[in-house]
Amino acid sequence: MSIYFEAAANLLPWMIEMRRQVHAHPEVRWSEEGTIMLIKQLNSSSYSHASFLHHDYQGGFVLDVISGIDLPIMAFRADLDALPIQEETGLPFASQVPGVSHACGHDLHIAMVLGVARAVAAGLVKPTHNLRLLFQRAEENPGAPPDPNSGGYYLAQEGALIGVTKLYVLHVLSTLKTGSIYSCEGPIMGNSDRVCVKIKALGGHVAHNADARDVNALRIASECIPMLEAIVNPLAGRNISCEPTGLIAGKGQSSSNIMPSEAEAWLACRTYLGADERTALHEGIKRQISGNVARYSNNRASAEVTVIPGHPATINHGFAGFKSTLEASGIAVLDKAPELGGDDASHLGNYVVQQGGEFVYAFIGAGGEGFADHHTPQFNPDESAMQLGLEAYLALACS
Amino acid sequence: MSIYFEAAANLLPWMIEMRRQVHAHPEVRWSEEGTIMLIKQLNSSSYSHASFLHHDYQGGFVLDVISGIDLPIMAFRADLDALPIQEETGLPFASQVPGVSHACGHDLHIAMVLGVARAVAAGLVKPTHNLRLLFQRAEENPGAPPDPNSGGYYLAQEGALIGVTKLYVLHVLSTLKTGSIYSCEGPIMGNSDRVCVKIKALGGHVAHNADARDVNALRIASECIPMLEAIVNPLAGRNISCEPTGLIAGKGQSSSNIMPSEAEAWLACRTYLGADERTALHEGIKRQISGNVARYSNNRASAEVTVIPGHPATINHGFAGFKSTLEASGIAVLDKAPELGGDDASHLGNYVVQQGGEFVYAFIGAGGEGFADHHTPQFNPDESAMQLGLEAYLALACS
Repeated sequence: MSIYFEAAANLLPWMIEMRRQVHAHPEVRWSEEGTIMLIKQLNSSSYSHASFLHHDYQGGFVLDVISGIDLPIMAFRADLDALPIQEETGLPFASQVPGVSHACGHDLHIAMVLGVARAVAAGLVKPTHNLRLLFQRAEENPGAPPDPNSGGYYLAQEGALIGVTKLYVLHVLSTLKTGSIYSCEGPIMGNSDRVCVKIKALGGHVAHNADARDVNALRIASECIPMLEAIVNPLAGRNISCEPTGLIAGKGQSSSNIMPSEAEAWLACRTYLGADERTALHEGIKRQISGNVARYSNNRASAEVTVIPGHPATINHGFAGFKSTLEASGIAVLDKAPELGGDDASHLGNYVVQQGGEFVYAFIGAGGEGFADHHTPQFNPDESAMQLGLEAYLALACS
Repeated sequence: MSIYFEAAANLLPWMIEMRRQVHAHPEVRWSEEGTIMLIKQLNSSSYSHASFLHHDYQGGFVLDVISGIDLPIMAFRADLDALPIQEETGLPFASQVPGVSHACGHDLHIAMVLGVARAVAAGLVKPTHNLRLLFQRAEENPGAPPDPNSGGYYLAQEGALIGVTKLYVLHVLSTLKTGSIYSCEGPIMGNSDRVCVKIKALGGHVAHNADARDVNALRIASECIPMLEAIVNPLAGRNISCEPTGLIAGKGQSSSNIMPSEAEAWLACRTYLGADERTALHEGIKRQISGNVARYSNNRASAEVTVIPGHPATINHGFAGFKSTLEASGIAVLDKAPELGGDDASHLGNYVVQQGGEFVYAFIGAGGEGFADHHTPQFNPDESAMQLGLEAYLALACS
């Protein structure tokens, strides 16, 4: 039984307490003030084994945990923001904010990375690195107001990673079984791009629907789902997926005798394409959906198609070393096929790799079969998985 | 040239002025107070040829125009309410209320029926009937808040039609050429029923969309359009139509990485079926859509299906007499195939016919090719068509 395991087991109850505090008070992107205040309450004055340095950036809050002079800098990342989802778990520590919840597990990430600071400051482990703990704002929904950029983008721009030679990011995944860590070399997550299609049509009285496909903006917007699939499917061997995420048309009952003249459809479009191919796909989507809508509606409706680039693909460099370090401490690391989630840790990782460093993004199993997916009202990951996450971070810090 | 033509031509400028006043200040169902106040400003004190009696009902305002003792009572109907549509005509007298407009021509109906009162009171014509002018609230969107019932339903219940032997309702139609009146014997418009489908699904992260049709409420709600069509199409020989009017899922950009767990679809379902067959169809829709959603989603999503009965079908009794009266005055009356609009004049008409009277609902051409359809932001009927409407009402009043 490693000292990392013992330290993590020791701190699990404290991490659970911290996680539940954060969970009850979720804050959406670019409004994470309360969460940052809570993080800042952990200070080093009551400990003798490390000193803490605080840095406020636009992209988030950075806590340096200094264990010695001239140690190399290793960074870990926790994301701070919650999602616009009404929690329906019924948990005693459920979100107290209507319509907002930590439905992606960022609350667990915060508690784990805080656990690192506390374990080091209390002398439970002795790192071979000074640690830069990145508490990053606005990971979710790049492109959305009030600032389309993400926290990771800003942290990389602001120099928060200068001098960092290794960056590791652990993300819980409720659909993977607790007890292992899962990752791979190279691309692990995709470009998380969004397509917004605004249809403008003539509309009309529902009784006059003989030429509905020409004039009913809702009917036309519904067709955008198969239209995007038709564009993307020929590229399917390249691991591309698209999925509708929103559609707004009409005003419910109060307009229930009207064929809407406007509709807005939102679709996710996720790929591993590099910058040039990605841009070409976006241009193709804009051109083809506009053309398809015109043809479908006999030139009586039009589509304004916007592609909002999300996070770039997340690409690992250094998985072999990451894996051997963890396995040497008795932690199971399983190979995982890449998936088309997206994370702005990619901005941070790209920066570190460009400077010659290493970057590994990995998932921590936090549930398994029967656990609700991320981004759902029932999301309720296995919080005991934080123990393995902290154990892994500590093993890396001491490697 | 008949005296009806002359009277109507004489009053057209006044009707246009009244219509534009109403048009600029539209009021949605059950909020027509300002419109009724405007109507009440027309009083008989300055005229010597008829006296006016005012009656306030829950269903609207009724103006009796009394020309003599013991004359039979003939009723005309004007509907008062506007629609929740943002006007985009750019007209100088366009709606001054954001998001609300007279996009169905009720403003023209009000001006025409007021024209009847003024023509009779001024002695321009000499009716053989006392006239009951029904200014009826809440014709649009039966089933919607704040009161699901319509104004016509209440007027019939409240006794506003007691003693009425003939009821005529003229409705402008912008897609028919100005200059003629169009109607038929028997059914002319349909049961204007609504179907609301609320989908509850698991939702999920957009990257986990391998089983999207099981969990994405938006994808499932979009399928309700073909599902309803599949139920209704086998009855197509019976003149049945369905059309989507609304779909709400997700929160646009702020939820653009989430497969929605909820979606609400609205569909219009219009038929000429009698009461029993209509009820059977509603039960079939509820049962089959619920079952289809369960099957489509592999029992992982559920649908709550509500059918909101709209106005009953509009069924004319007495078209031959109506037509011969108008043709005798030189007014062109063309046969029109029934269409699946809906109007709560059916409540009024059913009442009169049950009492042994006559009821004819007819369209006045008010535009033609190139004119925007009813219920659209660009709706702008030919207001000169009010002249023919008034001419017809006066010819009927004197028949």
